[in-house]
Amino acid sequence: MPTDPVALTAALVRCPSVTPDEGGALVLLEDVLTKGGFTCTRVDRGGICNLYARWGRQGANRTFGFNGHTDVVPLGDEAAWTMPPFGAEIKDGFLYGRGATDMKSGVAAFAAAAIDFVQDTPPDGAVVLAITGDEEADALDGTTALLDWMKANNEAMSVCLVGEPTCPNVMGEAMKIGRRGSMTAFFTITGEQGHAAYPHRAKNPMPAMARLMDVLSSRVLDEGTEHFDPSSLQVLTIDTGNPATNVIPAQTKATVNIRFNDTHTGAALTSWMQEEADKVAADFGVKVDMRVKISGESFVTPPGDLSDLIGSAVEAETGRKPELSTSGGTSDARFVKDHCPVVEFGLVGKTMHQVDERVEVAQIDQLKAIYTRILTDYFA
Amino acid sequence: MPTDPVALTAALVRCPSVTPDEGGALVLLEDVLTKGGFTCTRVDRGGICNLYARWGRQGANRTFGFNGHTDVVPLGDEAAWTMPPFGAEIKDGFLYGRGATDMKSGVAAFAAAAIDFVQDTPPDGAVVLAITGDEEADALDGTTALLDWMKANNEAMSVCLVGEPTCPNVMGEAMKIGRRGSMTAFFTITGEQGHAAYPHRAKNPMPAMARLMDVLSSRVLDEGTEHFDPSSLQVLTIDTGNPATNVIPAQTKATVNIRFNDTHTGAALTSWMQEEADKVAADFGVKVDMRVKISGESFVTPPGDLSDLIGSAVEAETGRKPELSTSGGTSDARFVKDHCPVVEFGLVGKTMHQVDERVEVAQIDQLKAIYTRILTDYFA
Ligand SMILES: [Zn+2]
Ligand SMILES: [Zn+2]
Repeated sequence: MPTDPVALTAALVRCPSVTPDEGGALVLLEDVLTKGGFTCTRVDRGGICNLYARWGRQGANRTFGFNGHTDVVPLGDEAAWTMPPFGAEIKDGFLYGRGATDMKSGVAAFAAAAIDFVQDTPPDGAVVLAITGDEEADALDGTTALLDWMKANNEAMSVCLVGEPTCPNVMGEAMKIGRRGSMTAFFTITGEQGHAAYPHRAKNPMPAMARLMDVLSSRVLDEGTEHFDPSSLQVLTIDTGNPATNVIPAQTKATVNIRFNDTHTGAALTSWMQEEADKVAADFGVKVDMRVKISGESFVTPPGDLSDLIGSAVEAETGRKPELSTSGGTSDARFVKDHCPVVEFGLVGKTMHQVDERVEVAQIDQLKAIYTRILTDYFA
Repeated sequence: MPTDPVALTAALVRCPSVTPDEGGALVLLEDVLTKGGFTCTRVDRGGICNLYARWGRQGANRTFGFNGHTDVVPLGDEAAWTMPPFGAEIKDGFLYGRGATDMKSGVAAFAAAAIDFVQDTPPDGAVVLAITGDEEADALDGTTALLDWMKANNEAMSVCLVGEPTCPNVMGEAMKIGRRGSMTAFFTITGEQGHAAYPHRAKNPMPAMARLMDVLSSRVLDEGTEHFDPSSLQVLTIDTGNPATNVIPAQTKATVNIRFNDTHTGAALTSWMQEEADKVAADFGVKVDMRVKISGESFVTPPGDLSDLIGSAVEAETGRKPELSTSGGTSDARFVKDHCPVVEFGLVGKTMHQVDERVEVAQIDQLKAIYTRILTDYFA
């Protein structure tokens, strides 16, 4: 009897696995995969649960990997949900619940596809599932923990498909072959407080802040590249918190986020911002501190065997040739890309992270069919 | 027996007259001045108490006016005071308390000088005291209420001396013949919220804010004029309140304060800022709202009879020729200047508005002597 990916999605949605809580989701998958013939290993680190499952021989020449996460973002405005957020109720063809699209349906679809595939047509190779409980937060002990453990234990994937939702509106319209990098810079400019009537006795940090933010946001980082949209720098906030209309503040803070393509590296952008910060500090006689957090470098898996394999399977099942996209936020593909070629393909992500997150039930079945065809073609 | 300005200062300091509370200060002065032969009228408006006192004939050719306030700013960090803030205790030659320098000592000195002067050497003219309880806050119903009432009742001053503290460090070193204008502009820039990874679907208001604040604070307003320091524009705060590192904010706010000399008017500066705001709104495709509050226009009483009179009296009593200054914040002289020539002279203001505000006892006596000499010379 084939594994039902809709029932599995529903069972997973009923697990309240808000990061960092396991919520029963990985325990459930371990059980289902073990019964399906997979060797399962819990790879927990730093209070986070992760699951590694392999069917077939360790070290097989051809090992197809799936990666995904069972953790979900918080409910947001709980009162605004019209359906129970962990209820997995189905209404008008949609299954509702936190994680319904991002990405319990994706995990259920590839787990169901993998279980049925290895039973129906046992391949000459291995199928691996690397499923984490830590993707939505800092991702420090999630997929990286799995990859570290795999390396230490001679486990490997030849290629990897991440099952995140990748289609903006219609099933099958896009896969992701890379992602832009993302980094955040936190600026603190310090001068000297004083009375607005006696500016020469103070040192206002605000003009320096205005200039620095103008300089940073005025620069055209690039015009886009073969596989990428143009990079983008956004000043997200400037805050001073000075309620008085006669006091020059001592300090002001700002946050800048950059989404960057393969023209840049986090280190090069850090150097550039540090230079501009130093210039402004010198020009205005203030102290400019910058702290940078690089969430991920940009990367791309150049179009080739893997994207062709996935593209033709998607086209065969949906009639749509998926675009090779690199847009959007970060995903765990940024870790996997150091391990093996990686592409992301999943269903429509429209409602992810929103109130009343929901997935079209028919898409879950379709996604399982696509994943099955990918496995079949890969091992053919 | 001469009126003791130190005892009167102490009695006034003991009245807790934090704006808008009268605190007993004007009641006390009304009593003292009435006993000293002055005709007193309470000119209350909008919940604020004010006192008008005249000795001599209404409509006299020569009427010397004093202006001052009995209200005081709040205590600030009350626990940090080492002396009772309304105790008027004397230690090491200093009288301590809120309002000790700003400006209960000034009011006490001119009241004592006026009472003794009209009794000892009754002049051919009138002496007027216009004392308000609303200077430290918005000053909407303070000296303006007194001036409005005077106009309606055919009361007038030929010249006016405001007894605010004017000396930065040493008694006698400066008088004020004018003040810079002061205005505050409140900016709100509105765009459209969105995700930092999809900036084309949002409209970030931050670059427009950075540009506008840079443009405004980069302009050299002037190089100073005969009687004035250069005008100064200070960006006091920019606030957005966006804690997320992946969200483009919808709105940001800023406050700008300008202290301007006689090169400018509040209206002209408003037009200039509105133009720059409109330019930025058009360039960045955002909405820029500006609200302006003009606290006072700049003004100057050109050096002449009044400043000469006061200067020579100060020099005779202190040995110092006071500088003709226009620096510092606003005062009620900005209202009086529309009524008659006005100059400000008072003692050392160092500790005004601070914790442990205090006045050197000897300076109170010296200030009374200076005010007495000014009256004597004026009516000579
Ligand atoms: Zn996800
Ligand atoms: Zn004052």
